[in-house]
Amino acid sequence: MTISKNDTFLRALLKQPVEYTPVWMMRQAGRYLPEYNNTRAQAGDFLTLCKTPSLATEVTLQPLERFPLDAAILFSDILTIPDAMGLGLYFAQGEGPVFERPIRDENSVQAIKIPDPEVGLRYVMDAVSEIRKALNNRVPLIGFSGSPFTLACYMVEGRGGTDFREIKTMLYKQPELLHQILKKNAQAVITYLNAQIESGAQAVMIFDTWGGALSHSAYQEFSLQYIHQIIDELQREKQGVRIPNIVFTKGGGLWLEAIADIGCDAVGLDWTIDIGDARRRVGDKVALQGNLDPSILFASEEVIVEEVKNILTRFGHGSGHVFNLGHGISQFTQPERAAVLVDSVHSLSRKFHEH
Amino acid sequence: MTISKNDTFLRALLKQPVEYTPVWMMRQAGRYLPEYNNTRAQAGDFLTLCKTPSLATEVTLQPLERFPLDAAILFSDILTIPDAMGLGLYFAQGEGPVFERPIRDENSVQAIKIPDPEVGLRYVMDAVSEIRKALNNRVPLIGFSGSPFTLACYMVEGRGGTDFREIKTMLYKQPELLHQILKKNAQAVITYLNAQIESGAQAVMIFDTWGGALSHSAYQEFSLQYIHQIIDELQREKQGVRIPNIVFTKGGGLWLEAIADIGCDAVGLDWTIDIGDARRRVGDKVALQGNLDPSILFASEEVIVEEVKNILTRFGHGSGHVFNLGHGISQFTQPERAAVLVDSVHSLSRKFHEH
Repeated sequence: MTISKNDTFLRALLKQPVEYTPVWMMRQAGRYLPEYNNTRAQAGDFLTLCKTPSLATEVTLQPLERFPLDAAILFSDILTIPDAMGLGLYFAQGEGPVFERPIRDENSVQAIKIPDPEVGLRYVMDAVSEIRKALNNRVPLIGFSGSPFTLACYMVEGRGGTDFREIKTMLYKQPELLHQILKKNAQAVITYLNAQIESGAQAVMIFDTWGGALSHSAYQEFSLQYIHQIIDELQREKQGVRIPNIVFTKGGGLWLEAIADIGCDAVGLDWTIDIGDARRRVGDKVALQGNLDPSILFASEEVIVEEVKNILTRFGHGSGHVFNLGHGISQFTQPERAAVLVDSVHSLSRKFHEH
Repeated sequence: MTISKNDTFLRALLKQPVEYTPVWMMRQAGRYLPEYNNTRAQAGDFLTLCKTPSLATEVTLQPLERFPLDAAILFSDILTIPDAMGLGLYFAQGEGPVFERPIRDENSVQAIKIPDPEVGLRYVMDAVSEIRKALNNRVPLIGFSGSPFTLACYMVEGRGGTDFREIKTMLYKQPELLHQILKKNAQAVITYLNAQIESGAQAVMIFDTWGGALSHSAYQEFSLQYIHQIIDELQREKQGVRIPNIVFTKGGGLWLEAIADIGCDAVGLDWTIDIGDARRRVGDKVALQGNLDPSILFASEEVIVEEVKNILTRFGHGSGHVFNLGHGISQFTQPERAAVLVDSVHSLSRKFHEH
C-alpha cells in the first residue's frame, strides 16, 4: 500500500512522532463552502450527491483545495446503512432525514437484512476508490459510519432531532428487541467499514452522535458494547500498514476511560471537556481528536488563534493529538475563518513536537 | 418560622440524618396530570396560569394530592425575569416561548432594567405566600429561578430549542456585551430568589438548563461565575432556619467539582453520571439531587423499581441524597408510573438510613 505524501494524521493517531499537530474538520465538505452548494444544486438533492461517486469525490476534495488539511473524509451520509436496509430514507424540506418505515416491532426488526456493502452500498465503495485515485496520496482518506445505537435512534424514531421517546421506551420496555436491532447494526457496520478499508479508506471513524443521551449504564449496555464489538472485528492493517480507528461519542466525556478501554486507537472529544484533563485520564492508551467549539469560528481571527493556542497548550508536548472541532462545522461559518483555524494549528503546534 | 411536618427534604439537603430518602420530581405539576390540563384549560393559556396566584397554587398542590412527595415546587415559568424586563414573552403555538424583542446589541442591553420583584414579579411572590398557606406546612416549598446564562440564552436567541448560534456568537465576538447581560441577570436572580425566600420559599433551586452547551472554560466564565455570585448573596437562613439551595447544570457532570466548590448546599445531577461516582468526587461538600432518566417512567413497574434500587445502592448509606429525575417528567408519562417511583424510593431507601 502506498503511503500518503502527508501521513501526519495517521502517525498522530498512532502516537508516532510528527512535526506538527495534524488538523481536519468534521463536516469539512459542507454547506459553508459555496462550491459545495454549487455541486449540490447540480446534483439536485442530497441523496443523489451521496449516491453519485463522481460528485461525492468532487465535494470530498473541495475543502482540500482551499485549506492545507491533513486528512480527507469520505463525503457520505450517516444513514446509508439503514437506507440500504430498505427503510425508505428521504429528506423532507427543512426537516432533515426521515424514514418511511421506522422500526417499531418484532416483525420489522426480524425483517432487517444486513446489507452487503458490495451490492447495496456499492456507491460508497466506488466513491472511496474514486476519491483515493483523485487524492493521489496527497493526504489519507477517512472512512466512517454511524454507531449501532446512533443508527438505531434514526431507525426507531423515524427521524432526527427528537426527544428519543420512541427509542428510550423500547430500551426500557423491550430491551431485547433493541438489542436485536443493535446486533444487526453492529454486524452491518463491521462489514461496511471493512469494505471501505478494502476499497481504500486509510482510517475509519465511528460517529456515536446520540450515545450521550443515555444514562451511564445504558450507554455501556446499548452503545459502547456494540462499538467495542466493531473495534474487535475491524481490519487493523492492510498490506502491512495500520488502519487506525477513532471513536467519537458526543457528550461522552464522563465515560472517557470506558471508551479508551475498548481498544480503539483514538477517541474524539467534544468541547465540554478540557483536553488536558482528558489526556491525563486516558494516559497512553489512545490518541485524542478534538476539541474546538465550532462556534468559535464565528469570532475574530484573534479569538480563534487564542483558542487554538489554549487547546494545544492544554494537550501539551508530544504526539497523539489530531486537532478538530468538537462537532461538525456550522453552515454559517465563513470559509476564511476555517483557514485561520487550519493555519494556526499548523504554525502554533510545531513547538510542541520539538525534541 | 414553623417547621414543616415533613422536613425530610430540607434535612437531606443539609446532610442531616433522615429516616428515608426524600423524593420530588422536576416538573411534577405538569401536563402528564389530567387535573393540570383541566386547570390550564380553565386559565386559557400558560402565562395566565403562571400569573394567577390562585391557579398557580392549585396546580402546585395537585401532584401532592396524588403522591406522597417530600417537597412542593412553586409553579412558575423559567422566563418570568426576562418577561418582567419587558422583552415581550409569548408562547407561540407548538413553538414554546418566544421573545418579541430579543437582546442583540449594546442599546438593548443598556435598556435592560432589573425588575423589582415586589412590583413586576408580585404575582410570583403572591403565589409563594398563597402556596405556603395552602400547604399548611405539609412539606417544604421550593422556589426557583433560571441561571443567568440560561436566561440569557432565551433573551439573546429570542426563543428556546435553538443551536445557540446567536448567544455563542456574542460570547466569542462580544464577550463584554454578554457579561453585561449576565451581570444584570445575576442581580435580578438574587433579588428574585431572596424575595421568594422572604415570601415563604424554604429552599431555592437554580436551573442552568443550557450551561452544558458551553465549553469547559466558557462554562466557568459565563455560567458558573454568576451562579457563584448568586449563591454568595442568597439569604441563607430565615428566623434561624436554614434555607438550602440547589444548583443544577444539565450536562454539567464533567464540572461537578467546580460546581460543588461554589458553596452551594446541593448539586442536581442528570442521568449521564453514576451518582456513586458523583458522591466520591464531591465528598462531603454538598448533597446530591437526582438522577433517574425520566424515560424510565415509560417502562414497567419492575424496571422502575430496579432502577430506583440501583440509584439508591450507588449513592449508598447515609444522608445527603434527594431523589429526583435527571430532568423534568415527560408529558407522556402515566401518573401511575410516577406513583411507583415515589413509593419505591420511600420503601427501598429506609435501609440506607439505619444506624
